[in-house]
This record gives sequence, structure tokens and C-alpha cells, in this order.
Amino acid sequence: MTLKEIANFIGIDCQNEKEITGLNTLLDSNENQLTFLENKKYINDLKNTKAAAVLVTHENVNEVPDGVVALVCDQPYLNLAKISKLFAPNVVEIYGAEPLIGSETTIMPNVYVGKNSVIGNNCTIMAGAFIGDNVKIGNNTIIYPNVTVYRDCTIGNDCIIHAGTVIGSDGFGFANTKDGKYIKIYQNGNVTIGNDVEIGANTAIDRAVFKSTIIEDGVRLDNLVHIAHNCKIGRGSILVGQVGLAGSTILNAYVVMGGQSATAGHLEIAPFTTIAARGGVTKSITEPKKSWAGFPLFEHKQWLKLQAKISNLLK
Amino acid sequence: MTLKEIANFIGIDCQNEKEITGLNTLLDSNENQLTFLENKKYINDLKNTKAAAVLVTHENVNEVPDGVVALVCDQPYLNLAKISKLFAPNVVEIYGAEPLIGSETTIMPNVYVGKNSVIGNNCTIMAGAFIGDNVKIGNNTIIYPNVTVYRDCTIGNDCIIHAGTVIGSDGFGFANTKDGKYIKIYQNGNVTIGNDVEIGANTAIDRAVFKSTIIEDGVRLDNLVHIAHNCKIGRGSILVGQVGLAGSTILNAYVVMGGQSATAGHLEIAPFTTIAARGGVTKSITEPKKSWAGFPLFEHKQWLKLQAKISNLLK
Amino acid sequence: MTLKEIANFIGIDCQNEKEITGLNTLLDSNENQLTFLENKKYINDLKNTKAAAVLVTHENVNEVPDGVVALVCDQPYLNLAKISKLFAPNVVEIYGAEPLIGSETTIMPNVYVGKNSVIGNNCTIMAGAFIGDNVKIGNNTIIYPNVTVYRDCTIGNDCIIHAGTVIGSDGFGFANTKDGKYIKIYQNGNVTIGNDVEIGANTAIDRAVFKSTIIEDGVRLDNLVHIAHNCKIGRGSILVGQVGLAGSTILNAYVVMGGQSATAGHLEIAPFTTIAARGGVTKSITEPKKSWAGFPLFEHKQWLKLQAKISNLLK
Repeated sequence: MTLKEIANFIGIDCQNEKEITGLNTLLDSNENQLTFLENKKYINDLKNTKAAAVLVTHENVNEVPDGVVALVCDQPYLNLAKISKLFAPNVVEIYGAEPLIGSETTIMPNVYVGKNSVIGNNCTIMAGAFIGDNVKIGNNTIIYPNVTVYRDCTIGNDCIIHAGTVIGSDGFGFANTKDGKYIKIYQNGNVTIGNDVEIGANTAIDRAVFKSTIIEDGVRLDNLVHIAHNCKIGRGSILVGQVGLAGSTILNAYVVMGGQSATAGHLEIAPFTTIAARGGVTKSITEPKKSWAGFPLFEHKQWLKLQAKISNLLK
Repeated sequence: MTLKEIANFIGIDCQNEKEITGLNTLLDSNENQLTFLENKKYINDLKNTKAAAVLVTHENVNEVPDGVVALVCDQPYLNLAKISKLFAPNVVEIYGAEPLIGSETTIMPNVYVGKNSVIGNNCTIMAGAFIGDNVKIGNNTIIYPNVTVYRDCTIGNDCIIHAGTVIGSDGFGFANTKDGKYIKIYQNGNVTIGNDVEIGANTAIDRAVFKSTIIEDGVRLDNLVHIAHNCKIGRGSILVGQVGLAGSTILNAYVVMGGQSATAGHLEIAPFTTIAARGGVTKSITEPKKSWAGFPLFEHKQWLKLQAKISNLLK
Repeated sequence: MTLKEIANFIGIDCQNEKEITGLNTLLDSNENQLTFLENKKYINDLKNTKAAAVLVTHENVNEVPDGVVALVCDQPYLNLAKISKLFAPNVVEIYGAEPLIGSETTIMPNVYVGKNSVIGNNCTIMAGAFIGDNVKIGNNTIIYPNVTVYRDCTIGNDCIIHAGTVIGSDGFGFANTKDGKYIKIYQNGNVTIGNDVEIGANTAIDRAVFKSTIIEDGVRLDNLVHIAHNCKIGRGSILVGQVGLAGSTILNAYVVMGGQSATAGHLEIAPFTTIAARGGVTKSITEPKKSWAGFPLFEHKQWLKLQAKISNLLK
């Protein structure tokens, strides 16, 4: 789609015929992608963007770098939402190659495997599983019954995905109109899962809005865990039952999160961090190998001390 | 079924042959419905009921209005539970019309659509979805794989229901016998979902015991959200991942509830209220447009101040 | 499999040809089972074990009772994990008897029922349900759509399992290698569910590592509840939405747990205990019939008093 077509779609005049292949953030966009600036706190990212074009308010248009087309509008984020629909792939592909299934792989009855998908050797895909279009699954992986893997996601070798888990559902993204409607931001990214990952039952992992939600090698997720869009779960991390990660949380390697603990999103947790059960992380943790607890969060020993002080109030 | 037959079923003598069409609350019952009073705090509702008959203890029988038949018993709620089974529809209908499927609608393989159900135009019902009997779905709605929609529920136009979500499961209702058995209160209501609603993955929305659990237009529910029976989620409300609403919670329009927040049920939240992540609401919020946090709940600014005071205990 | 074969598999020299039929804990092992001691706090259990053999460190070998073979190694738990794979049954059985289905039982389309499974009379197994190999289901039980029952589990009479619920997924168990890999402990136990149990939607109940995760008669579980491996839920207990139980939690009869409450695992709760919503139980509760709240947990009245004191900090 050309930039001209996209601009016209949202009622902006633009004659530039450059081919646009997708949407992305300011810093991640390449020269064929469109980006946006809504929140002034990312103004430095704007100055460094390599995007083809940027949706930007009049106020910030002077900061758009040379060679980047400015699409000036009142509500860049809302317009991004509207445009995202143009790049959304089909919910279900009708055309495309029949799936490739490796040797010694068992596909049980009532399984759907979409177009252009590839499943490796020695896998077991159990009854009722849904494997969407353009999905890649490695070797020796077990998909238990009634699992749903949305289109474009990838799963590595030696993984086990337990029943009812959903991989690649849309992230929770929308922009507001002034009259109180929500315009969906199509989640055109995917989920990529490494090797030797085990995921419990009825867990949900959302696909990225751009690029990938990433589950690295060796991760263990328990039951009923919620992973929002664009999170990255570092190698060997362990998330116990009912943990919830808000969007764009980055866990570095070997983070352990206890049951029902959670993060607020857009933050990063240092390697080998432990969050106790029910801990609530609201800002980044930069020092590795420490233990934390509570909400608000304290170092675990401090939290224990604080609870003792609190219970003293009863005396 | 006649009142006489119902009364005899629970061992009460009654010769009234009035036709009873269902069960309902004191205030919502019409002249062909049966109601009950167990908890004396609803005695004023009893005085105003328009029901055909009421299950009531001897203690309260004098408050039953003229023209309403009193079915006097020791345990009205328990008897209601027993009677509710008489009004439960079939789990699966065998007879009835074949479903009506609109034009340009895709029904993927391994989908079940029940008797008397109607699906509009331009919908996509993905593999493994279950659409029960007597379900109505509007136009342009996407039902992702392995979603279950129980019988009698309705979903509007332009909705997106993500994989693994359950709509219309039974509410958590039962009455105790004196010897410690639970008698199921059949949940003979439904769930009604408006237009332009998006619901995340592995969420569960229970059907009403009477009437409807209601999700109004424009609502956004994230993953792993729990909505108990008889809740009403007002227009444009947003519930983030792992929120839990207990029964009969009413959210007015544009309420926002952060991740893992919850309500205690039988309460109402004013329009444009924001509940921060982990907030726990235990009584109604009457003033609109305010922000709240914590459990117990405080106004958000007060909660922040309180947390500062609490952390001072460590000094 | 002989003890010799097992020992050789993990690189230990042993000539004993005794037949080993499975793995178990120190106290529960019979004379044909293999057990292990990793944590010295169980040293008394070691002294009383009746197992055929025990994986044990050099440090504790002298405490192994006469007649029990000691398999001495540096990391008993890691070796147990490696051995557990030898005893894992097939993910899907290919051979075995066709399932037995009772009279008046309805099996809807798109249901899978595995080998050697037995379903009683007057049941309804709804579309998209998965009933694994060697499952036993009693009479009058309803399995709603897209439920998954893993192999070897049992469900009693008069049960209702709502849509999307998973019964028998693997418990969250693994041992660490020194270089940061997790070795799966195959969960070779099962889940056994009694009579008159109702389970909500999208709940997950993990199978036991050894023996059974047990749900006794009359239990009521709500939606999105997480039950980890080897829990026991006593007769008539009630768990409200989004409750989470960590592994080996024992609830005695008639325990009530409010919404989003949780336990830390390896603890026991006395009969007729009530845990308020959000309560977090971290140690055993021995006195019956009391009410508790908060995290950390207090007696409910004390918790209310404490919250009043805390809010006084704002003055």
C-alpha cells in the first residue's frame, strides 16, 4: 500500500507514493514502515526514527527528521488504530499451501491446521487443538487438547503446551475517539516461543501489536497465567499459577514470579530476580539476584519486617 | 406448570391452578412468576411484589400482599433451588429448527451450532467453537477457536470473542440443606452482549440466575476475566486482565478496572470510575469520575499517601 | 523395569534385579516403588520408608533402613526427575479397548473419548470435549463443551463440569540441573473427583505427581480456579472465582475460600474454615470453624481491626 493511499484513508492529503509494508514504533521502524508520536515523552525517539513516515501532531512536526514524511493530524494514535486495520491479515486464509506435517507426528481427530503451517517431526497435536495459518512448530512438541495457536505464531522444539491454553490472541489495544468509541489497534505481530518451553493449562499469551511477544528457551509457565502483548520472558524464567504481566514487560533470564504476582507493564526486571507470591511490580528492577515481595513492592526482607511493624499496630 | 404442581413438588399443599412460567426476584417477578423471601432485609420488596406466589417463612407470611399466594415453608431459598430444576431447559435440544446462518458467514470445521440459533451476516465462527441452542449472534462478529457460547445467549454486531472464552456458564448458586448438601439453583437466565464488544482469551462470563448478565455496547474485556452471574457491565467499560466481578455487580458506563482488581458483588459503581490494578471494591461507589485503589479501597491519592505512611513504619 | 535398569539409566552401578513399578514419596512408597530424599527435613520419613530403594546423597546414606537399597548420588531430586520419564505412560494410547458408553448417555459431535475409558449412564458429553485414555466417569454427569479430561482421571456421579475446564494437566514440577536446565518430573498420578461436584468454567486442576489430586464429594469450584498438583479439597468445600491453591494443599471438609484467595502449598486447613476474598494462607490452620482474612493472614476480626488502625495512619 502506498503512503498516499494510507494518508487518504485517514483524510490527510499526501502525494508520496512510497510503498509502506507495515506499522512499527519510532525506534523499530524501517524505511518502509509508518510510525507515530502521541506522547511527548518519546520525542527523542522521533528525532532518531528511520521510518518512512510518521503520524504526528502539529505541535511536534518540527522534530520530524529530514527524509521522514510527516502526516500531521490531531490524534496520531487514533489514526494509527484506523490504519492498523489496513495491515491486518485475513482471520482465516482460504488460499495457500496445505500444511506440512513432519514424520512420526500424530495429528488427532478434530484438529485444524491452517494454510502454510509447518509442524515438525515427532509431535503430538491432540484432539480439538487449533493451529492457525502460517504457524511453525518444531520437533518433539506436544500440543494438548483444545489449545489454540493463532496465525503466524511459532513454537520451538521439545515444548509442551497444556490444554485450553491460547497463544497469539490479540493484545488489548485500542484508541479512543472523542465521542467515547474505541478503535481497535489490530495486533499484527505474533508470539514466538523458543525450545524446551512448558506452558500450563488455560494460560493466555497475547500476540504483539508490532513484532513479537517472546517466550525464550526453557521458560516454565503455570496454569491461568496472563501474558499481555509485547512482553518478553527471558530464558529459564518461571511464572507460577495466575501470574499476570501487563504489556511490554521484559523479564530477563531466570526471573521467578510467585503465584498471583503481577507487573504493571513497560518495565524491565533484572536477571535472577525473585518476586514472591502476590508481589506487584510497578517499576523496573535493575539489580539482579534480589528477592522482592508485596504491593507496593519491597525487598523481601524489608517486606517481612514491615509486616511485623504493621501487625504491631494491633497492640 | 401450575402453582399446585410446584407446591406439591416441595411438599406444600396448594390447590391454586395458576400457570407459573418461571422464577424471579421479588421486584422483578410478573404475575406468572414465583418468587421467594429468605433474608428479612428484603421485606419491603415483598410488600411490593407483583408475583403470582412467594416462598416465605411463617414469620413473614403476614407481609405477603393481597392477591399473592404465600407458599409457607421453613427454607424458602432451599425450596427455590429445588423448584429451579423444574424450569431448567434441556442441556442439549434434540428437536427444533436447524440454525440459520447469514450470508458471507464462514463456519469452520468442527464447529457445533445448536437448534433455533441464528448467526448473522459476515461472521466468522472458527474451528472448535460451540454455539449452543437458541443463541443469537449479529453481523460482522468473529468467534475465535474453542469459544463456548451456552444456550440462549445473545451477542451483537461487530464483536470479537477470543479463543477459549466461555459465555453463559452457570452462575455459582446453590442452597444448603441442613445436612450439608448443596442444592443447585438452576441458572435459567442468559448472557446478553451488545454491539462492538471485544472479549479476550479464556475469560468466563456466567449466565444470570434470572434474567440476564449484561455486557453493554463498546465494552472491552481482557484475558482471564471472571464475570459472575447477573453482573451488568456498562457501556464502554474496560476490564483489564484477571479482573474478577462477584455476582450482581453493576458497573455503570465507562468504568475502568485495572488488572487483578475485583468487586465483592451486589454493589454498583458510578460512571467513569477508575479502579487501579489490584483494587478491591467492597461497597458501592456513588460519585462518578473518581479514582480508587487498594484493598481495602481508598481514593487513589489517599492510597498513595497511606502507602507512604506505612513504609515510614520501617524507619 | 528392574532396579538395575533404572540405576544404570542414571549412571549408578547396581545389580539388584528387583522389579520397580513406580515412584512415590518416602512414606507412601510400597516395596516395589522407588523413592528419594533431597531435603534433610524429611530424614525421619527416610527412616520409616518401606520403599524398594531410595535415591539419597552420600551424607544421608547411613539413615537408609535395612532392606532398602540406597542409590547414592549427588542430586537425588534431579535423578528422580530423569527416572520419572521412564514411568510416564503414552500421551495417547493407540491400542486398548474402545470406550464403554453407558445407556441414555449422549456423546455430541467432535468429542474424543480415549482407549479403555468408561462413561456411565445418563451422561451428556458436549461437543469439543476431550476425554482421555483410561478415564472413568460415573452416572448423570454433564461435561460441557471444550472441557479436557486428561488420561487416567476419574469423575464421579452427578457432576457438572463447565466449559473450558481442564482436569488432569501436568503439575508444575521440575528439577534444576547445575547449568540451568529444568528436567521435567513426569506427573504420573491423576485427578479423582467424587460425586455431586460442580466445577466452573476455565478452571484448571493439575494431576498429582504421585497418586492423586483429590476433589471430594459435594465440592463446588467456581470459574478460573487453579488447583495445583496433589491438593486435596475436602467434602463440601467451596472455592470462589480465581482462587489459587499451590501444590499439596489440603483443605478439610467444608472449607470456604473467597474470590482470589490463595494458599502457599504444603499446608492443611481445618474443617469449616472460612478464608475471606484475597486472603493468603501461608501456614496450616489447625483450629476449625474460624474466619481469616488478609495477606499476611489474620483472624477476620483482627484483620478488620488492623485495617482500621492502618487507615488511622492517614490522620
